[in-house]
Amino acid sequence: MESKSVYDECGVLGIWGNDRYDPAESLYYGLYGIQHRGQQSAGIVISDCGKMICQKELGLVSEVFDEVRLKHLSGGQAGLAHTGYNRAEDNLRENVQPLVLRYTKGQMAISYNGCLLNAGELRNEFEQNGYMLQSTSDAEIVATLLSRARVSCHSIEEAVSQVIKKLKGTYSFLVLTPHKLIAVRDPYGMKPLCMGKLNDSYVFASETAALNIMGAQILRDVRPGEIVVVNNSGMSSINTKTAETTAMCIFEFVYLARTDSFIDGVSVYDARYEAGRILAQEAPAKADYVVGVPDSGLAAAFGFAEQSGIPIAEGLVKNRYVGRTFIQPSQSIREMAVNLKLNPLRSRIEGKSIVLVDDSIVRGTTSRRIVQMLKEVGGAKEIHMRISSPPVHYPCPYGIDTPDKDLLIANQMSFEEIQELIGADSLSFISEDGLLRTPVGAKCNFCAACFNGNYPLQ
Amino acid sequence: MESKSVYDECGVLGIWGNDRYDPAESLYYGLYGIQHRGQQSAGIVISDCGKMICQKELGLVSEVFDEVRLKHLSGGQAGLAHTGYNRAEDNLRENVQPLVLRYTKGQMAISYNGCLLNAGELRNEFEQNGYMLQSTSDAEIVATLLSRARVSCHSIEEAVSQVIKKLKGTYSFLVLTPHKLIAVRDPYGMKPLCMGKLNDSYVFASETAALNIMGAQILRDVRPGEIVVVNNSGMSSINTKTAETTAMCIFEFVYLARTDSFIDGVSVYDARYEAGRILAQEAPAKADYVVGVPDSGLAAAFGFAEQSGIPIAEGLVKNRYVGRTFIQPSQSIREMAVNLKLNPLRSRIEGKSIVLVDDSIVRGTTSRRIVQMLKEVGGAKEIHMRISSPPVHYPCPYGIDTPDKDLLIANQMSFEEIQELIGADSLSFISEDGLLRTPVGAKCNFCAACFNGNYPLQ
Amino acid sequence: MESKSVYDECGVLGIWGNDRYDPAESLYYGLYGIQHRGQQSAGIVISDCGKMICQKELGLVSEVFDEVRLKHLSGGQAGLAHTGYNRAEDNLRENVQPLVLRYTKGQMAISYNGCLLNAGELRNEFEQNGYMLQSTSDAEIVATLLSRARVSCHSIEEAVSQVIKKLKGTYSFLVLTPHKLIAVRDPYGMKPLCMGKLNDSYVFASETAALNIMGAQILRDVRPGEIVVVNNSGMSSINTKTAETTAMCIFEFVYLARTDSFIDGVSVYDARYEAGRILAQEAPAKADYVVGVPDSGLAAAFGFAEQSGIPIAEGLVKNRYVGRTFIQPSQSIREMAVNLKLNPLRSRIEGKSIVLVDDSIVRGTTSRRIVQMLKEVGGAKEIHMRISSPPVHYPCPYGIDTPDKDLLIANQMSFEEIQELIGADSLSFISEDGLLRTPVGAKCNFCAACFNGNYPLQ
Amino acid sequence: MESKSVYDECGVLGIWGNDRYDPAESLYYGLYGIQHRGQQSAGIVISDCGKMICQKELGLVSEVFDEVRLKHLSGGQAGLAHTGYNRAEDNLRENVQPLVLRYTKGQMAISYNGCLLNAGELRNEFEQNGYMLQSTSDAEIVATLLSRARVSCHSIEEAVSQVIKKLKGTYSFLVLTPHKLIAVRDPYGMKPLCMGKLNDSYVFASETAALNIMGAQILRDVRPGEIVVVNNSGMSSINTKTAETTAMCIFEFVYLARTDSFIDGVSVYDARYEAGRILAQEAPAKADYVVGVPDSGLAAAFGFAEQSGIPIAEGLVKNRYVGRTFIQPSQSIREMAVNLKLNPLRSRIEGKSIVLVDDSIVRGTTSRRIVQMLKEVGGAKEIHMRISSPPVHYPCPYGIDTPDKDLLIANQMSFEEIQELIGADSLSFISEDGLLRTPVGAKCNFCAACFNGNYPLQ
Repeated sequence: MESKSVYDECGVLGIWGNDRYDPAESLYYGLYGIQHRGQQSAGIVISDCGKMICQKELGLVSEVFDEVRLKHLSGGQAGLAHTGYNRAEDNLRENVQPLVLRYTKGQMAISYNGCLLNAGELRNEFEQNGYMLQSTSDAEIVATLLSRARVSCHSIEEAVSQVIKKLKGTYSFLVLTPHKLIAVRDPYGMKPLCMGKLNDSYVFASETAALNIMGAQILRDVRPGEIVVVNNSGMSSINTKTAETTAMCIFEFVYLARTDSFIDGVSVYDARYEAGRILAQEAPAKADYVVGVPDSGLAAAFGFAEQSGIPIAEGLVKNRYVGRTFIQPSQSIREMAVNLKLNPLRSRIEGKSIVLVDDSIVRGTTSRRIVQMLKEVGGAKEIHMRISSPPVHYPCPYGIDTPDKDLLIANQMSFEEIQELIGADSLSFISEDGLLRTPVGAKCNFCAACFNGNYPLQ
Repeated sequence: MESKSVYDECGVLGIWGNDRYDPAESLYYGLYGIQHRGQQSAGIVISDCGKMICQKELGLVSEVFDEVRLKHLSGGQAGLAHTGYNRAEDNLRENVQPLVLRYTKGQMAISYNGCLLNAGELRNEFEQNGYMLQSTSDAEIVATLLSRARVSCHSIEEAVSQVIKKLKGTYSFLVLTPHKLIAVRDPYGMKPLCMGKLNDSYVFASETAALNIMGAQILRDVRPGEIVVVNNSGMSSINTKTAETTAMCIFEFVYLARTDSFIDGVSVYDARYEAGRILAQEAPAKADYVVGVPDSGLAAAFGFAEQSGIPIAEGLVKNRYVGRTFIQPSQSIREMAVNLKLNPLRSRIEGKSIVLVDDSIVRGTTSRRIVQMLKEVGGAKEIHMRISSPPVHYPCPYGIDTPDKDLLIANQMSFEEIQELIGADSLSFISEDGLLRTPVGAKCNFCAACFNGNYPLQ
Repeated sequence: MESKSVYDECGVLGIWGNDRYDPAESLYYGLYGIQHRGQQSAGIVISDCGKMICQKELGLVSEVFDEVRLKHLSGGQAGLAHTGYNRAEDNLRENVQPLVLRYTKGQMAISYNGCLLNAGELRNEFEQNGYMLQSTSDAEIVATLLSRARVSCHSIEEAVSQVIKKLKGTYSFLVLTPHKLIAVRDPYGMKPLCMGKLNDSYVFASETAALNIMGAQILRDVRPGEIVVVNNSGMSSINTKTAETTAMCIFEFVYLARTDSFIDGVSVYDARYEAGRILAQEAPAKADYVVGVPDSGLAAAFGFAEQSGIPIAEGLVKNRYVGRTFIQPSQSIREMAVNLKLNPLRSRIEGKSIVLVDDSIVRGTTSRRIVQMLKEVGGAKEIHMRISSPPVHYPCPYGIDTPDKDLLIANQMSFEEIQELIGADSLSFISEDGLLRTPVGAKCNFCAACFNGNYPLQ
Repeated sequence: MESKSVYDECGVLGIWGNDRYDPAESLYYGLYGIQHRGQQSAGIVISDCGKMICQKELGLVSEVFDEVRLKHLSGGQAGLAHTGYNRAEDNLRENVQPLVLRYTKGQMAISYNGCLLNAGELRNEFEQNGYMLQSTSDAEIVATLLSRARVSCHSIEEAVSQVIKKLKGTYSFLVLTPHKLIAVRDPYGMKPLCMGKLNDSYVFASETAALNIMGAQILRDVRPGEIVVVNNSGMSSINTKTAETTAMCIFEFVYLARTDSFIDGVSVYDARYEAGRILAQEAPAKADYVVGVPDSGLAAAFGFAEQSGIPIAEGLVKNRYVGRTFIQPSQSIREMAVNLKLNPLRSRIEGKSIVLVDDSIVRGTTSRRIVQMLKEVGGAKEIHMRISSPPVHYPCPYGIDTPDKDLLIANQMSFEEIQELIGADSLSFISEDGLLRTPVGAKCNFCAACFNGNYPLQ
């Protein structure tokens, strides 16, 4: 999926330091490991002797942080970080996280990933009780509940335990007070969250890729429904009531997570590779080469190649210099635009039949352009498109930005029409069953609602 | 007072439009009329069909607003604006106003100038009741009280009436809802606030200078303790219990307000001019010329000249290009720095004896440099310094940033020592009584606590 | 002249250091003393052990130089600086000075103010001889001539002597080589250039105001037709053939130069003051107050007041925050724009008759707005406008950007029509003879071609 | 070669338009196709009715060009563009291309890639003849020669023909006048240059990748020693004396050119792939997987895999968000930095023996880090490093920035020491003969001086 139409909505990161390391510096590098989860805002908050110092802004990590800003955050013992993505109407300055607040015990910071289904009800209840809200973020709802709960609770972890009973939805969030760092994952375990150790410091992140970058040793995933508490005495765990079943988001394995991350102990790369293998079994094709759409279709392409025995080839290269500041072309040369991001390797594919592997088809426009380019510019003879996830039929209410139901191509036309639109000589999607078998060894169950409409939580 | 050591802490502005004018554009120009009241942040919020759209940032008006930002605010019916100044520790992004919030009736915005003496108690009460706060601003305290009050009150003006009973301190603030614009001034009337009409639209501002710039006709000051409500039906006023006495800040007349503003119907320029006249009576001097320190000492210099019969002369000119981005010089040429901002006109003053009029002496360092420059570079023979306000002995708790008590030169040394330090051949301050007579025709009483320590409100 | 329609076209600055001072730092501060001579570009070049290091860009001094850029220039022995203004079509990156070049003896830098009348011929000659030019600046022409001349000349000063024989026009320029700093002024002495000492270092500047800021002692003006050479052995002077007469630009005294500068030993302020006195004799008026248009009309207003015995008053104040980044208002509120820059002090002028003194009328639009504002907003009863320079009838070919002849109001309508357009109750200009008497004690003659069309040099 | 230590020094681009296309827009997109050839500056010049309009600056294409700048260039018929890289000492504003100049026939622009060996002599000759130079670029030397030659030549192409007789070195440059676009390639053909058609317009570029992006049809390479002239009548070619042999830079195939470009009709990708195949024959290895270092080692890895029969696997993924603005880590966590750019896929390589293929080893530091990361973080059992170019022993004098001879690892230590330093279990380089066989079908000869010291041109 070259031109993205499905967006994750945040990555979280936290560190409780017991070392000489500067928390802000570690968090800054770690942010590059969750940048792909939210490309519209970035922030770091540091706890230094009871005081929270925060730097956050709309923009990429590399745009938000320069040496001056990082210097303002130097020192301190612990910190949180966040990368955010918001739907257009919520892409506001006041929604940028981490959220810092003053409450009855001093200052607190929150870094949140997820989506509350009962956000509207909670907001209504707050407002009818005279509370005001300054953003449209779910993080502020959780913060408001925590402030209220902490009045009567003996500890912040007790407040957290009490608050999550009121939350209906998906969440992986971190809470930082001057004395503790708390990591929480929803009972369904829909959003990933893992923990590691950096010498004597504890680190939490949405994905293991961030822990790797920070140089931390990966300990394990935070469990669905678990509350992990870290302070200067060490780490402890509170197990709250879990859901009847877990429902990890399968789309993390399909596309959202970084290919070098592990979720529930399973390599994301391996799952994608396995998807390619299964696809080759379910929908074999005769071709000269297997080609993956960079970057997200490559792993499945390797798997397809291994299973099918068809050699893999690079048929498309990606331009590394085309970023967000790229100026949109005028109508007269719009056609040329896809060439900028992706270029066919004519010498590899000219006159060849190709199995083209991509991770998903959501709106169909990008797939259509790529097939056209491979044929017209690259000279490919035949293109057999293989997609390593089933057709997307249902939007996600759990914190993934998907197009409206009507804009999903699988709801607009028949399979044959899609194939014709895209211009492929054949087209196949992996079966839902096949996809669910890809995270080999996973102990959790999965949410595949975007494919089958079975929403585990409503 | 060339290099400022006393700072105002905010200016407010609001418009309820019934015309073809674009509220944001009018507010943008009006902001230049209150820029001197707060040079660290600027913001505008627009109410458009029930939705509040806000642009605000740390920086000067000219730095915060460009055409792109202004375009985002175009349209709508009403709006608020704010220029802010904060003590170093509070100069934070989250304190930038206007404050926008969601409460039980939708969205609301607040633009606040003043200082609550019971802020700490109110914060404690909030936090103990489970409320969280996201800034250190008094605006958020007022907003929190309003959100709470509105639950049981029938209207926003009733909520305002109820809330101000809980406020102890100084304030002039504006509240904007989709249906009303409300202007409030504290019972002592310590902070200025005036209203005007721009064709059929109502405008409110900290100073009349902003109304002039907007092209509005000045109606009158909002009265101490008054609540003015504007909606599409017109304007109405609610008079709440006023204080036993009014206590308008006399320092607004001395230095803080713009010279072309009117407060309580009295021209600020005239009051400063009158101060010069009284000073000439109280502390006459023999000299060839009267010279004012630009820009804030000029009006009093004219008054001194008229009263004394000594001709006025320009003896100092100001460099218009030295702004905030000026790079601080290294130690080796530090001495030259004052020359950058102020230059003596040698041809006017060489060999002459001069009455030098300035508005105040707070820390003494700038006065010392100016006297030295006039003598050494300008060749002045004698300098008789006349100050149009009494010595500052007491810090201000009402929202004016003054140096700590120990740093006020009047508390550090005797009158004779100050004169010697500054290097003037004679030095006189206007009497407190004299100063209080300067706003001729004012109906209000004045707070002169910074001079006499009589705090009207504690 | 509030809204400028006449523009100077550059200021130059140079230092040959024999002290501990950092040349770049001194030049940086000095640039603020010539910023008013060119507000479109700024640059500094430093000579350090035979190597020239240059930082220059389009923009104001405060926009072009930050601490990082200044640091790149630290060290070295000598340097040049420049502020530039260009007509729209020449406002190009490649015209920004100082110009740095490599020639037969190494590197050289040039900082130039003036206008060559034979630029076209010289360019043609160069190009026909196979030279290429990379800018449209006269500085490059001088540089090209110097490079050529230096091949056969024994020294750079000999080359300069030879080159200026080929130059027809006005110029004050500085040439820096690793071994010498050379200052040159044209035989007519039309552009100002002065020299001073900063301890053991020599400094040159377009105006004495820059020397004052740098803390330098003013030595004298560079004489018309003089070449001053400075190196580590000291200073020497070469007198070249001068013109039959000198022709210093009288408009420098009227408006262009800083009020605290001295030209030809005469205080610019005093000349403007004297203009006011003469104006009061030539065109007396009955009025309650004399008011000057800030900033450039103030000195003459003081002179008018002294001579006439009518008291001076501040009737207009200038907004210090409205700079170049100010966003132009839309048509609907355009009328309000002049209020932003200049505000009437109603309390001073309401019901009063006023002598309004300004330095010049070029296009008439600003004068018209000010009179209208003083009457409508300020309530002035009568306005007698007095202009301290004669009507401008002729454009300047010598490096001052004036409107086209057709756009000069004095060529568009009769005196009576101008008075009516402006809305003044009476209007008078100083006589040409009167103006030429204002620089009391000047030894040079003056060019007044913009008033009388007598071009000294064609 | 992940962290580059060999840099190309420029890419050129030009268009002569006979279509409705906006030249600037086409050039802007085309610049992304030569961005990899020069990442320190970018520029576009447009010829519009005889006038040249230029926008250029230090920075990446995406940093230099925004919509405002592109708009300034809209319209016109033809244009040149350039991406530049300079050694640190020459990374100056004045060296940024295209160079625009005024000469005897009007304006001209030049976009140059290459390196003149006789630059010093030509500069000396110029300076001794009184010419000045304003940059340290070879483009200015060519421009100076052209200006001189054009005086006596009848046409610009005649001037070009005459000028190149004086040039000793490598060059591919474009010259634009209002009437013609001329493309020139040096007799050895060391630098690539190709031509194409975009409907009726002619386009030239350093690489075919740029033509592809622009949507142009590729015609052919400009031949060594050829001068191609395009004007409104069409295209013509002038063949000048060629060298006794051609000497295309083999390092273009190894690393410098984009993988999707064709040089001399040969696919760069195919040549790299072939290098992998030859390497597998020359230096076979037993391993579980072949892994390429992204991005530049991937093609050879595929070739190695095909030839050896060892399956290819993705073992390393690249972080797409780490760009130039990345803040360098402090010493304490420096070790973690390589993880940011490149991450091992542990699930692929843990416990596996790997053939790691990269394009070159220049200084050895990056290879050492990658091997260490693959073993320590990725858990690889054995690493057999295979390099698809021979050891680099000699610096390049022809316009490629290589480290000093002493810093080339192949000159610092023996083969065994390199292998030990890098930590690989085995290490092999392709033979020089092998490398020269990789561009299958190439008609030109190659310069391999960096490997063998046989400089074709001195």
